[in-house]
Amino acid sequence: MAKNLVYAQSGGVTPVINASAYGVIASALNSDSIYKVYSAKNGIQGVLDEELFVMNEERKAEIEKMAYTPGGIFGSCRVKIETEEQLNRIFSVFKAHNIGYFLYNGGNDSMETAFVIFEYAKKIGYDLKVFGIPKTVDNDLLHTDHCPGYGSAAKFTATAILEATRDLKSMSTSSTKVFLMESMGRHAGWLAASAALSQEVEESAATVILMPEVAFSKERFLKRVEEEIIKRGFCSIVASEALRDKKGMFLSDAGYTDSFGNVQLGKISSVLEQMIKDELKLKIHAALPDYLQRSSRHIASLTDWQDAIEVGARAVLWMSKDDTSGKMVTIVRDMDQPYIRHFDTVELSTVAGGTKTLPADFIDETGYNVTEKFINYARPLIIGETPNQYMYGVPMYSKLKYCLEEKRL
Amino acid sequence: MAKNLVYAQSGGVTPVINASAYGVIASALNSDSIYKVYSAKNGIQGVLDEELFVMNEERKAEIEKMAYTPGGIFGSCRVKIETEEQLNRIFSVFKAHNIGYFLYNGGNDSMETAFVIFEYAKKIGYDLKVFGIPKTVDNDLLHTDHCPGYGSAAKFTATAILEATRDLKSMSTSSTKVFLMESMGRHAGWLAASAALSQEVEESAATVILMPEVAFSKERFLKRVEEEIIKRGFCSIVASEALRDKKGMFLSDAGYTDSFGNVQLGKISSVLEQMIKDELKLKIHAALPDYLQRSSRHIASLTDWQDAIEVGARAVLWMSKDDTSGKMVTIVRDMDQPYIRHFDTVELSTVAGGTKTLPADFIDETGYNVTEKFINYARPLIIGETPNQYMYGVPMYSKLKYCLEEKRL
Repeated sequence: MAKNLVYAQSGGVTPVINASAYGVIASALNSDSIYKVYSAKNGIQGVLDEELFVMNEERKAEIEKMAYTPGGIFGSCRVKIETEEQLNRIFSVFKAHNIGYFLYNGGNDSMETAFVIFEYAKKIGYDLKVFGIPKTVDNDLLHTDHCPGYGSAAKFTATAILEATRDLKSMSTSSTKVFLMESMGRHAGWLAASAALSQEVEESAATVILMPEVAFSKERFLKRVEEEIIKRGFCSIVASEALRDKKGMFLSDAGYTDSFGNVQLGKISSVLEQMIKDELKLKIHAALPDYLQRSSRHIASLTDWQDAIEVGARAVLWMSKDDTSGKMVTIVRDMDQPYIRHFDTVELSTVAGGTKTLPADFIDETGYNVTEKFINYARPLIIGETPNQYMYGVPMYSKLKYCLEEKRL
Repeated sequence: MAKNLVYAQSGGVTPVINASAYGVIASALNSDSIYKVYSAKNGIQGVLDEELFVMNEERKAEIEKMAYTPGGIFGSCRVKIETEEQLNRIFSVFKAHNIGYFLYNGGNDSMETAFVIFEYAKKIGYDLKVFGIPKTVDNDLLHTDHCPGYGSAAKFTATAILEATRDLKSMSTSSTKVFLMESMGRHAGWLAASAALSQEVEESAATVILMPEVAFSKERFLKRVEEEIIKRGFCSIVASEALRDKKGMFLSDAGYTDSFGNVQLGKISSVLEQMIKDELKLKIHAALPDYLQRSSRHIASLTDWQDAIEVGARAVLWMSKDDTSGKMVTIVRDMDQPYIRHFDTVELSTVAGGTKTLPADFIDETGYNVTEKFINYARPLIIGETPNQYMYGVPMYSKLKYCLEEKRL
């Protein structure tokens, strides 16, 4: 008998997380082996609360528009599944709603959650197919060439630093000499490094990139900025939020810790801005895009968007046709240029909790820029623009009905 | 005998200042009354330095692409013309290069510069046509319905807060409760107010807008944020960099003063972020787009872009055909919906140095939002998207040859 499916979003959103949602939901609605298609409200929290939106009730046109919707369309969460009580509750809800498929769309913490649920199903003998759908602007998941979400946030980053550097360049003769943009990336420098993708078009953009994989040295950094000022008259900098010194201490620490123990970082821009003012006496502008970097749907990358849709659709295909379970969809690159790739799977257990940092050969010998190897890797991921729609001058998106399934518990 | 023309850019750039440059240069190159077309390097500084780029040497395709180019394509400046010595030098350069037309593209400080040059020409009996071309993301110039640049920065602002609020909304159940975005606008709240243009599509975006026209009260502000948290579970805030308290003191002051005596503001986002953490104990994310707000060419408004081209082209038309001088081009609105407008001129003297703040009837009775009247005013200005081109995944722009005219002094 056909079973029901639950899809949920977890962790920080990306510009294309809803493209994956579209991939899952549109394919599940068309599948013969799946009966009802649910999306949990606010990630796994919606399962715990028995709050499930019925996708079968939505209009087809709105399902299509999901792929263009910023944010997390069903709500996301930062909730860790740790206790037997939580797991019992999850499976009571699954049982009550005849759930046979569970898809969790998130980063490494979310893959841990998916893995815990997969293991528990085996333990209690509940027939459940579990799939992880990768998603993170940080691009730090193991065993996949890249993560959906990264390409779009990278495209935003490269575009923003290109445009802001053109601004700086215009003003530098009689005004601001330094522009500094802070980049997200809690554990790895993938996003900061993506700023270098602007250089092919504007060679003076992001000429100083501070990645967390390279220990920060104040002396060397200030010297590097001064070199740029001498060479060009201005300096364009991108700095990762997660910079550490030689001793491994974060340069900045906003003091938050989430339920997975991640320290929430921020404000490296303020630390470096003050440093440049105090030590070099240069006029500086600093930007902190924050959520803009991971939410800018309007400048999503076409490649990334297509990947995001396909990882969702493939998970449904593999679960429903091939009975695969306990896996995360991965992207395998076949060629850099022209860029071609295929999809595969990896055991959830091997992804959970792991972090992929920038390989040493992606960072150049100065430590302030990337190598050609990184450019060849990252460039295909930001190529192309999506066909967006606007209403009243701002991006238009899906307006779902959000019909909640009747509670049974 | 046909005379030569000098165009120059001044003050902070906008996403469409180069669209005005295109309007001027393309029309001047096609004019029978104008012989050579120059663009000064770095604004009026390029005239002082006798550094003039010869536009007649550029390829036509690159001239066309100027309209898509971020930053100030010839360099801008913050230089005040105050002394007889500066004026003498300017007119020596004009004389040496047979300049009969001078167009200055900028904000109110730049219109002051254009006016001083216009007056001096009359005083010394030098035959010079002078025109000001309005440009400022701040939208604070007098005697024009709006300023080219504002619509595009407003479109960026409304889009960014819409997308970031969708992000906040997704996460608010178990994580961040407040998102705050700082907005430019040194003297007036036009840009902060433009965040409200997101509300038609996402009603929870920018529900608290802090405009400098309304004296900031900590107590009322925190109460307003709490109301939003109770109502929606989260709160989306846009705050102008130029907030002042009841006594008229700036909440934040980075300590810079430019050559026109403008205090350079910033970091209101940090002040308010700390306030919300300390007083309401809420998890908050704060963004400071800074240059991104005035440089985001990729999300330029079509209406604004067309206005920017036309103010440039009309200035050339009126100078060369009608012998008009000492004026700034203005935009006169004929209807809100459908939006139609025409162009006119105003005496430079009446624009110079003045500032247009938000009218009282554009701000609602709470002081934290705008009125329908503001929406009707601002909405047409952000409508439409420009047909952008990308290369390697980032915006492509004009690559000029920048041939400098031989110096004669």
